Amino acid sequence: MAQKPSIPKGTRDFNPEQVAKRNYIFNTIRGTFETFGFQPIETPSFENSETLMGKYGDEGDRLIFKILNSGDYLSKVNYEIDNFSDFSKQIGTFIQSLCGELDEIIGFKLRSQVELIPLYKNLLEDFEIRNIYNMIKVNEFFRINGFETNTAMLRYVIDNFENDLLYKSFNAIRTRDEISDVATKILGKPVYNYTVNQDFLKEIYKIGLLNILDLSQLSDQISEKALRYDLTVPFARYVVQHQNEIEFPFKRYQIQPVWRADRPQKGRFREFYQCDADVVGSKSLWQEVEFIQLYDTVFSTLKLEGVTIKINNRKILSGIAEVIGASDKLIDFTVALDKLDKIGEEKVKEEMLSKGISEEGISKLQPLFTLTGSFESQIESLKGILSTSEEGKKGIEELAFINEAISELGLKTATLQLDVTLARGLNYYTGAIFEVAAPKTVQMGSIGGGGRYDDLTSIFGKPDTSGVGISFGLDRIYLVLEELGLFPETVNKNVEVLFINFGDKEALFCLKAIKELRLAGINTELYPDKATNSKQIRKQMDHANKRNIQFVVIAGDEEIASNTYTLKNMISGEQFKVSLSELVDHLK
Amino acid sequence: MAQKPSIPKGTRDFNPEQVAKRNYIFNTIRGTFETFGFQPIETPSFENSETLMGKYGDEGDRLIFKILNSGDYLSKVNYEIDNFSDFSKQIGTFIQSLCGELDEIIGFKLRSQVELIPLYKNLLEDFEIRNIYNMIKVNEFFRINGFETNTAMLRYVIDNFENDLLYKSFNAIRTRDEISDVATKILGKPVYNYTVNQDFLKEIYKIGLLNILDLSQLSDQISEKALRYDLTVPFARYVVQHQNEIEFPFKRYQIQPVWRADRPQKGRFREFYQCDADVVGSKSLWQEVEFIQLYDTVFSTLKLEGVTIKINNRKILSGIAEVIGASDKLIDFTVALDKLDKIGEEKVKEEMLSKGISEEGISKLQPLFTLTGSFESQIESLKGILSTSEEGKKGIEELAFINEAISELGLKTATLQLDVTLARGLNYYTGAIFEVAAPKTVQMGSIGGGGRYDDLTSIFGKPDTSGVGISFGLDRIYLVLEELGLFPETVNKNVEVLFINFGDKEALFCLKAIKELRLAGINTELYPDKATNSKQIRKQMDHANKRNIQFVVIAGDEEIASNTYTLKNMISGEQFKVSLSELVDHLK
Repeated sequence: MAQKPSIPKGTRDFNPEQVAKRNYIFNTIRGTFETFGFQPIETPSFENSETLMGKYGDEGDRLIFKILNSGDYLSKVNYEIDNFSDFSKQIGTFIQSLCGELDEIIGFKLRSQVELIPLYKNLLEDFEIRNIYNMIKVNEFFRINGFETNTAMLRYVIDNFENDLLYKSFNAIRTRDEISDVATKILGKPVYNYTVNQDFLKEIYKIGLLNILDLSQLSDQISEKALRYDLTVPFARYVVQHQNEIEFPFKRYQIQPVWRADRPQKGRFREFYQCDADVVGSKSLWQEVEFIQLYDTVFSTLKLEGVTIKINNRKILSGIAEVIGASDKLIDFTVALDKLDKIGEEKVKEEMLSKGISEEGISKLQPLFTLTGSFESQIESLKGILSTSEEGKKGIEELAFINEAISELGLKTATLQLDVTLARGLNYYTGAIFEVAAPKTVQMGSIGGGGRYDDLTSIFGKPDTSGVGISFGLDRIYLVLEELGLFPETVNKNVEVLFINFGDKEALFCLKAIKELRLAGINTELYPDKATNSKQIRKQMDHANKRNIQFVVIAGDEEIASNTYTLKNMISGEQFKVSLSELVDHLK
Repeated sequence: MAQKPSIPKGTRDFNPEQVAKRNYIFNTIRGTFETFGFQPIETPSFENSETLMGKYGDEGDRLIFKILNSGDYLSKVNYEIDNFSDFSKQIGTFIQSLCGELDEIIGFKLRSQVELIPLYKNLLEDFEIRNIYNMIKVNEFFRINGFETNTAMLRYVIDNFENDLLYKSFNAIRTRDEISDVATKILGKPVYNYTVNQDFLKEIYKIGLLNILDLSQLSDQISEKALRYDLTVPFARYVVQHQNEIEFPFKRYQIQPVWRADRPQKGRFREFYQCDADVVGSKSLWQEVEFIQLYDTVFSTLKLEGVTIKINNRKILSGIAEVIGASDKLIDFTVALDKLDKIGEEKVKEEMLSKGISEEGISKLQPLFTLTGSFESQIESLKGILSTSEEGKKGIEELAFINEAISELGLKTATLQLDVTLARGLNYYTGAIFEVAAPKTVQMGSIGGGGRYDDLTSIFGKPDTSGVGISFGLDRIYLVLEELGLFPETVNKNVEVLFINFGDKEALFCLKAIKELRLAGINTELYPDKATNSKQIRKQMDHANKRNIQFVVIAGDEEIASNTYTLKNMISGEQFKVSLSELVDHLK
């Protein structure tokens, strides 16, 4: 049965040229990582869910791809009430009490709790509530409106429902005439004559699926593994798990794919590579210095000149927040400051005001808005602004140290720039924050970033292990190199020579030469099918042209007799007879 | 909150040494693939489920890792009865009819279908039935036993159930006294006084989860993507999807991980790499010849000498089956023949007999059991055995062609061997079948395999595209190289030189040299933290030793003053002062 083939959204196939170009970038980064003393590790594509969940915030957790347990996974779901969500437990208790209430109110003996589930569901839908927190709100609503008991809650439901779900359910439960009387009594109006046995079944199933377990609980029970979301958390896990085998400080690099259930868009994929280098086990600022050199080396080697390596320090941001009396609003403050480039000074101030930062505080920021010029002059300005903050002064000291070292050592083609608006994953970083911007001639977001984090491994039980690391954004670097035409022409290790196949005798003669050429490291190919007429010969020649293979070798009776090969340059059109050793020499 | 870190079973972390060794194998294979004219492609880690499912047999399908849809996946589950499984629809109909029957039998007005679900469930459990097919069997059971109506089915259930599930359910539904009377009447014995409101809820939920949708249907609705199981099916999908961009014959290689939910065991993992090379779009046997050369080249380059490349042909197996009158038992026949090495001639014959292959047929196999000696002499024997089978003779012709070409071209270190018992994925292959055995000195299964398949891409709508390919078993090759000590000593691109850090001034002086060394491609590192006493200096020296870094550079006041560096060989203990350029020369 033929299927129209496609791939999942946000994923990509790579053809030989793309693989070659990507490998060119990977190899440049890998080579530089290694000369800088980093060593490779690899971790599994999927980790235990508990390793990943809760490490990336709610938004990140939502984007983690979960792997369904293999085998008969539903049979392993735990149905014990104790393991149900609070919400479900609450439903049970609530329904029980409602049963009693109903008896009192309408003098009608309910047969089962289950008959009340739809009633309750209706209540929930009226309030658009799906969880225990909203249920509390409902209770509050009743309290505020002067209702004090479950009786009141129930009356409210009975008086107000308009949704025919309840009619359906009641009809479904009671397929006999009596239901009409009872329902009419409850509702004060005639019930629909609705035959919804199947609908009722559906409702029960839906309740079963949607309400017994909340989604995250069900997911936990049918999925225990997840595709890695980044390389940092698996690295932290690795460091803790293997701490007894690792000699610290540990400099590792890791180039592997990660997966995110993000909405795909231009330049954002659901599967993409990260290229990370990190050092753990030392607080030395020389590492920040070396990472700047590393960025400079990689981009210079890629001939991508003119990148800007932006640097900031968490302590600077904390210091500023402290100075303006907004230490408790550090996130709000940095989020607003981060927008300076985009929305301008006035809007940033407005946003800060709206977040409760005082006019007085904001006025102290004034020098920040006009902070330009050299690294050194910015440092001087910051000294003024941060004179009263110990943490801020520490940040300045760190930045100055790094800048002086870099000035001494020099950068090849990159520029180091202080950017006090740079925040990135602020909650994560505790010291230096890095971001690399592509040359200004290209429209592109950051092509790299990183920073220092003082306590990553403590989530896995190893506290006090400072780390600092950087990452390269492969896909964006690829786009930049493509746009600027910076991929070397030789990047695609194409086949260099194709042997035309005239028949079995000739093919065998060719394969003797092909064997020697391959031994000499020359990518060589025999056209697999034999050409028995000139049209087929032309087809083989065309094959070489279509695949941009520069040389073709022709060997027929004449060549076999003279033990030579005719080498044809497909670009110049030249061709000449050569011996096997001349052939190898020529193509080498 | 500290978690004890671990990784999912069947997966692995790779430390720097392991990564280096694996890359050594990968690079050797990759380099050889390229000199043989193969070009790399890469496909996404996960494919749409429909691309993978149904391609690997039931057993394979079961081992495919499915990815849970992201977001609120349960809300997208389709609850329409029309989309329920046949089983669920059948439940609905069946329950409706049972309702009527019950009324007649016990004169009891059932309130709802739902009250019968547990009854029905009980019936199902008695018969260990879970699907519509088994339900048909139940009906058959009744028919055979002389019951002809649903009344009879119901009586059977009522008379026979012992499972307290039903008691519970009835109790749960009818929480009032009347249930006792009714239930006692139905059951002919007193019901338990069971207060199981919550239990009832649980049962409903369980029914909802387990019975509305059968497992595969639910999986289809909550999972639409799956991790690739091999590289062949994604390659077939790639070829069809990109057929207009591809110039055929298409020679591609692919080195990527695959995932299988196999039971992990020694040498078998849930995540592992496959290294595949395939040609599609040509039936030329020269490709078989080249693949044998390729195996020989890779293993010779890895210094793994003495591997045996076994070859067989599907047409030989079909021919033999034809000759012995067992064409319809090709699989049984080859499965038995495949065991010749393990269980011996007599047992193989017994197995064939037990599978219904005739004595006469088996007697014709006699020459096969003693088939030894050179490729050529085996070919001669086969000619005798297969003289009446056109297909068999075609197979012989193909094998002879390949063998003659290889004899002419020669192999470096491998041996080509005809093995008529070789079957591998028989249903898959249509011509040549390959398997590579490690040298006899090592206990290891096959380290590679492949074959020709004539119609792989037709499942994706592109028929008549012949392909042939081989694969390398990375993990087993790794184990073999490890066991035989064949990894080169230089495989691990370790850091070559560590600079001792005496303080900021010295570190800066060192970094000037480090920059030059790295430029020269020498893996170089500065110890990040400064040593302020001799104990700390010793610690830095120890760090070099523990990491097998051969050289250490020491640069203190004296060296700075004379603009030199002291280079110490950690193995010989020698040390001497050198200038920067001498340092680079020495380490280069």
